[in-house]
Amino acid sequence: MDKRIKEHAEILCDWSAEVEEDDKVLISANNQAQELVKALYEEIGKRNAMPITVSSNPEAQSLFLEKTEEFKTPSHLKALYEESDVFINIKSSDNLRALNNVASQKLAKHSKSMKPIQELVEDKRWVLTQHPTKNQAQMAQMSYEEYKDFVYDSIILDWEEIYEKQEKLVKKLEEGKEVKIKGPNTDLAMSIKGTVPKNSCGKKNMPSGEVFTAPVFTSVEGKISFDLPIIYQGKEIENTELKFEKGEVVEFDAEKGKDHLDQILEIDEGSNRVGELGIGTNRGIDKFTKNILFDEKIGNTIHLALGRAIEGTIGDENKRNDSAIHVDMIRNMDNSKLLIDGEEILSEGKFFWEK
Amino acid sequence: MDKRIKEHAEILCDWSAEVEEDDKVLISANNQAQELVKALYEEIGKRNAMPITVSSNPEAQSLFLEKTEEFKTPSHLKALYEESDVFINIKSSDNLRALNNVASQKLAKHSKSMKPIQELVEDKRWVLTQHPTKNQAQMAQMSYEEYKDFVYDSIILDWEEIYEKQEKLVKKLEEGKEVKIKGPNTDLAMSIKGTVPKNSCGKKNMPSGEVFTAPVFTSVEGKISFDLPIIYQGKEIENTELKFEKGEVVEFDAEKGKDHLDQILEIDEGSNRVGELGIGTNRGIDKFTKNILFDEKIGNTIHLALGRAIEGTIGDENKRNDSAIHVDMIRNMDNSKLLIDGEEILSEGKFFWEK
Repeated sequence: MDKRIKEHAEILCDWSAEVEEDDKVLISANNQAQELVKALYEEIGKRNAMPITVSSNPEAQSLFLEKTEEFKTPSHLKALYEESDVFINIKSSDNLRALNNVASQKLAKHSKSMKPIQELVEDKRWVLTQHPTKNQAQMAQMSYEEYKDFVYDSIILDWEEIYEKQEKLVKKLEEGKEVKIKGPNTDLAMSIKGTVPKNSCGKKNMPSGEVFTAPVFTSVEGKISFDLPIIYQGKEIENTELKFEKGEVVEFDAEKGKDHLDQILEIDEGSNRVGELGIGTNRGIDKFTKNILFDEKIGNTIHLALGRAIEGTIGDENKRNDSAIHVDMIRNMDNSKLLIDGEEILSEGKFFWEK
Repeated sequence: MDKRIKEHAEILCDWSAEVEEDDKVLISANNQAQELVKALYEEIGKRNAMPITVSSNPEAQSLFLEKTEEFKTPSHLKALYEESDVFINIKSSDNLRALNNVASQKLAKHSKSMKPIQELVEDKRWVLTQHPTKNQAQMAQMSYEEYKDFVYDSIILDWEEIYEKQEKLVKKLEEGKEVKIKGPNTDLAMSIKGTVPKNSCGKKNMPSGEVFTAPVFTSVEGKISFDLPIIYQGKEIENTELKFEKGEVVEFDAEKGKDHLDQILEIDEGSNRVGELGIGTNRGIDKFTKNILFDEKIGNTIHLALGRAIEGTIGDENKRNDSAIHVDMIRNMDNSKLLIDGEEILSEGKFFWEK
C-alpha cells in the first residue's frame, strides 16, 4: 500500500475525526476508495472503535432516483446516523456526472427527504475528504500519479501549524472592520464588522486551509474579477466580472457562460449578493482541479460566494443571506492585495506571516 | 447490462424478499457486486422502497480484526438492522481467503459480538445470494463466461413450480417414518419420525432447490460414502466413508484429509452424529463448484451434515443435535436410491415426480 494512504488515514482518525475507543464510526465510500477504507479499518481497529462502511454507488443512485416516485426519509439510515459518533465521508465517485440525467426537481426532492439525516451529522464529528481516483485525475487534467502527488501534498501537512497561522488571520478579521481587495480590474470593499471568522484547518474538510466569514452583505461596494472558472451545476463560467453597489450586483460580464451567470443572479433575492469571503492558505494546493474541496483552499487565493452565508459566521448584529444557492468564485491574488483596515494581509503572493 | 442481472434482481425482489412499498431494504455487498446492486436499486425504486448498501470489504475486515483487542456489538449497526425490514446479502468477495490469516479464536470472538445483530435478521425477510465473480469462477475451475452461465442457469428458474414439486417430497417426508439410502458402498437407514421437513425454494437462499430435515440422530445405522469433496474451514476431505451404529460414527475413512475428518469427529458430542438430511433438486446446478450455496442443491444429490441440526426441523418429540459445528457431506445419487418407507423417491437419476 502507498505509504501516503496510511498517513491520510492516520490524519483523518487523529486530527480530523479524533477517533477514540468505543466510537461508532460511519464511513461513506465508493468502490474506488477501498485502499483508504482498508487503511481506516486498521487505524479504527487500533483505537478499539467500530467501523461500518456504507457504499455510495452514484450509478445505482441514479437508477433509484429515476424510478422512485415519492421520497421518504429512510428510517434505517436515520437510525444508523443517530447511533454513529463519527462520520468519514470519502469522495471517490467513478463517474462525476452519474447523476446528470436525473431531473433537478427530483434531486431537490430527494435532498429534502435526506435533510433530517444530514442534520444529525452537524453536531457530531465529521470530515469530508478525497481519495485520488483516475477519473478525478482526468477532470484535473493530470496523470494519475501526478494527481496522487497533488492530493497527498495537500493533505499530509502539519495541521497544528496551519491552525496556528490561520488563527492569526482569524484574530485580524475579528478585530477588523473593513476588507479591501485591490488588483488588476478589481477594487472592492466590504464591512466585516460583527461577523464571525472561522479557522478551517482540516477538522471538517481534508484537505482544508482556509479562513472564511460572512461579510455584511449590504456593504459590498466596487468591482472584482475572477480569473479561475466558476463551476455551478456542472457548467463553467469563465473570467467573470462583477460590479457591486450597496451589496447588490449591478453589472456583470463573463467571457464564457454569461447566460448561466445571469440565471444564477436571478434565482432569488440573495443570489445576487455575497454570502461568504474565504481566504485560501493551503500551499500544498497549487493547481485548479475543478474540485471545490481543493480549489477554494489554494494558497494565495480568495473567494467570494454569491448566495447563502454559512451558519455560525454571520454574527448576532448582522442579517443572514439565506439564498437557496451558494456559488463560489475564486480569484488568484498574485498581483493583488487583501487589506484589513488598511493593513496588508496578503500581498505580493505572501501572507503577512510569510514575510 | 447483462439481461440476466436484471432478472436476478427481479427474482430477489419479487420471489425471495417480496419487497414492498416503504420497505427499508439493507443490501450487503462487496465491490464486485456493483452491477447487481445497480439492478436492485432500480427494482427497489420501482417499488417505492428504500435501499442502503453496506459494503463488506474482507481485506479491510481482516486488518480490523487483527488490530482490535476486544469486540463489542456495534450499536450503530444494530440500530440499522433493527430498523430494516429486508436483508439482501450478496456473496461477491474478491478474495475468498482474505480472512485466512486471522486467528480462529479472534474470528470466534468477533462472531460472538455480532450474534445479537444476526439474531435480528432471523424473523425478518432475508436472502443470501451470489453475484458471479472471476475469483469464484477460478475456484469453480471455470472461465468467467462459463461461470456466469452456471450461476444464472441455477437462479433464473420458475421457483413456484420448484416449490410445488418439492412440496410433494415434503409431504412424503412428513408422512414417512424411515429413510434408506442404498447404492455402491452405501446402505444407510435412519428414522425421520416426528421431524419437520422444510421446502427450501429460493426464499432465503438464491439459488435454492432443496428439501431438508433433521433425522432422529440416534437412529442412523449403516454405512455411506461421499464422492464429492467435503470442505470445512477451507480444507478438503475426499472420498469419505462413514459407518454408523446407533447414530454414532464408529468407523471412518477418507482418501485425502482423514486427519482433518478425525479432528471434526472429535470436536464435541454432536460432531460425530448426523444433524441434517438434505435432498438437492436444482437441475440447473450440474457441477460441484466448492460453494456450499450451490453444491448442496445439485439436482440428484443428497447430503448429510455432521453436527448441529437446523432450527425448526427437529420436531417436538426429538432431541436436538446442538453441536458447535455443521459440516455438509454430499453424495451423487446417479447409481443409488433414496427410499421413504420402501418407496423409491430418487432412483436411476430421477425424482418420483420426474418419472
